[in-house]
Amino acid sequence: MDPRIREHAQVIANHSVDLQPGDNVVIDAHPVAEDLVVALHEVIGDVGANPITTGKRAGKRQHRAFLRAAAQEAGDDDPEFETPEHELALIEHTDVYIAIRAGDNATETSDVDPEVSAAYSQAYRPVQNERLSKRWCLTQFPAPANAQLAEMSRDGYENFVWDAVNKDWDAVREHQQQMVEILDPADEVRIKSGETTDLTMSVAGNHTLNDYGERNLPGGEVFTAPVRDSVEGEVLFDMPLYHQGREITDAHLVFEHGEVVSHSASKNEGLLTEVLETDDGARRLGELGIGMNRDITKFTYNMLFDEKMGDTVHLAVGRAYGSTVGEDNETNDSAVHVDMIVDMSEDSFIEVDDEVVQRDGTFRFEDGFEA
Amino acid sequence: MDPRIREHAQVIANHSVDLQPGDNVVIDAHPVAEDLVVALHEVIGDVGANPITTGKRAGKRQHRAFLRAAAQEAGDDDPEFETPEHELALIEHTDVYIAIRAGDNATETSDVDPEVSAAYSQAYRPVQNERLSKRWCLTQFPAPANAQLAEMSRDGYENFVWDAVNKDWDAVREHQQQMVEILDPADEVRIKSGETTDLTMSVAGNHTLNDYGERNLPGGEVFTAPVRDSVEGEVLFDMPLYHQGREITDAHLVFEHGEVVSHSASKNEGLLTEVLETDDGARRLGELGIGMNRDITKFTYNMLFDEKMGDTVHLAVGRAYGSTVGEDNETNDSAVHVDMIVDMSEDSFIEVDDEVVQRDGTFRFEDGFEA
Repeated sequence: MDPRIREHAQVIANHSVDLQPGDNVVIDAHPVAEDLVVALHEVIGDVGANPITTGKRAGKRQHRAFLRAAAQEAGDDDPEFETPEHELALIEHTDVYIAIRAGDNATETSDVDPEVSAAYSQAYRPVQNERLSKRWCLTQFPAPANAQLAEMSRDGYENFVWDAVNKDWDAVREHQQQMVEILDPADEVRIKSGETTDLTMSVAGNHTLNDYGERNLPGGEVFTAPVRDSVEGEVLFDMPLYHQGREITDAHLVFEHGEVVSHSASKNEGLLTEVLETDDGARRLGELGIGMNRDITKFTYNMLFDEKMGDTVHLAVGRAYGSTVGEDNETNDSAVHVDMIVDMSEDSFIEVDDEVVQRDGTFRFEDGFEA
Repeated sequence: MDPRIREHAQVIANHSVDLQPGDNVVIDAHPVAEDLVVALHEVIGDVGANPITTGKRAGKRQHRAFLRAAAQEAGDDDPEFETPEHELALIEHTDVYIAIRAGDNATETSDVDPEVSAAYSQAYRPVQNERLSKRWCLTQFPAPANAQLAEMSRDGYENFVWDAVNKDWDAVREHQQQMVEILDPADEVRIKSGETTDLTMSVAGNHTLNDYGERNLPGGEVFTAPVRDSVEGEVLFDMPLYHQGREITDAHLVFEHGEVVSHSASKNEGLLTEVLETDDGARRLGELGIGMNRDITKFTYNMLFDEKMGDTVHLAVGRAYGSTVGEDNETNDSAVHVDMIVDMSEDSFIEVDDEVVQRDGTFRFEDGFEA
């Protein structure tokens, strides 16, 4: 076994989920991630915790078969799904939930009706919410189909994933904390890139969180929520944006009083329109995130990595994370949360309360920063 | 997908576990059985039940890693295991449990200390007992490593498994019921084969059950429990006997008053001795079974199939099934239940209350029977 897999397992157990003796652990994974699952079992046996492996999330071929059969049985009606109470009971009695992204075909559910998937997700939400109340971690195993999605060789993608994951996360936390301490007490943020992006927003009263590889592995961002009505200006998302397996190119949004008042895209504009028309919250920002993981050097069509790239900022239309919203501020709620990324590596800056804190990707607390 | 896989899934759902709308279903399987798991998900979606797949039983490589790590951590002490409460909660909220035998290496746990496995099994027993209280089914998928264990080609083994599994089980039940009706009210049974086997036992007051593919798929036997102290005579088990991965050849047992008073084997006699010395119950019979599945034509080192072979009788030393023991009779209890098989195809007969009911494998209710 590649020693980096055992290192990955150690990072998950010791850093991300803080594994303890007696913990009941659920690992959800596709068989292509078997090596990492085995390495995790070594750690779990060593610590004295109790493992079970499920194939729910990753068993896309099974899930496709189930959803299509249910849809066919329902005929012209929408299929109805029940919350799986046995799975809910499993998670309720679980301390640690580890989800491993990996598969043998990234487009396996491409012929499932999105409405059927949505109906199932709705019934499944209690299980998902229960998972998020545990010590949980979402990570990636570099299987060949995932390398294909990233348009990389298998060896190249393995290097990419393990370089991004197997890090000194305490050092990352300390480094990123410098940005948290700038953003957390701030009032106004301005994002400027080229002639196409100039956006201002208030973050006053909201909380800035430091993502250093706990719930997401890799981590590598600091993030907060814009104050709901404060966003003004325009933004062009010049990094690839994938939604429901389709690319939206050159998404451009114009905000007034926090709301998108006009939008365009050079490809799949209709899909962007659909997203924005989901509900009221979908036309407002729920997240401002600043990517700080410089070991993620390449866009791989996988938001777990893409949004943490160094020299990028991402904004999400839709739902805000509750933990980022101050108690005096209104939370932006929505059925969607769609991240979109701006390249900040050239001709760009971030201003916080009228001071430049990042220019062309370099933070003011880093060498080479030019004020 | 081979259409026999979908047929197998239908037999499991409609015959073995009587799948109902709203059932919470656990499927435990190794990834090599994916096709059958997918086919089951089609049926489950069609019926409107709720599936989850686990890899506990079949994830031998993970399990090996876990057990060895726990043993290493314990050092010179025996490792201690906890009952996995989250898995127990899962099964408690489950209606149907389907276990699929299949793997990619039948000897994957060969380097796990048997005492460590036994300690884990002990902690796991509440989960196992809970499973057995559900509508459950144990079946086989013909993966390549299982074909290898059976010393067959993959195609040949696929034919073998699906011929044994995909049957008209109602017809089997009716056919076998004729033997149940002979054995259930009987007092004395005599098993005679060649010069080496001549065994008598009472089954008075005990119950004969008809195994027609419900909990075991394939099924194909009728079975009961000998009255505990009644077994007299000798038996040579002339079909291969595998225990803990090792073959015991020509096992020979002599019984007096129900108890083994002498034993021998031409290979691995020490292992046979170990079995018999496990506890008091291990020296007495817990089961008399009569194999009646004539589509199982070959010994495959897999008791799920072997014990149901046509023209065979099997006896188990150790634990009796509670459901076979009449309320006025004493149950033989033991930590072990080891099945051993006698070939009845030639120079053999079964007598019930002094009447021959099977000669050279042919039952008295079948064509060609010679009284």
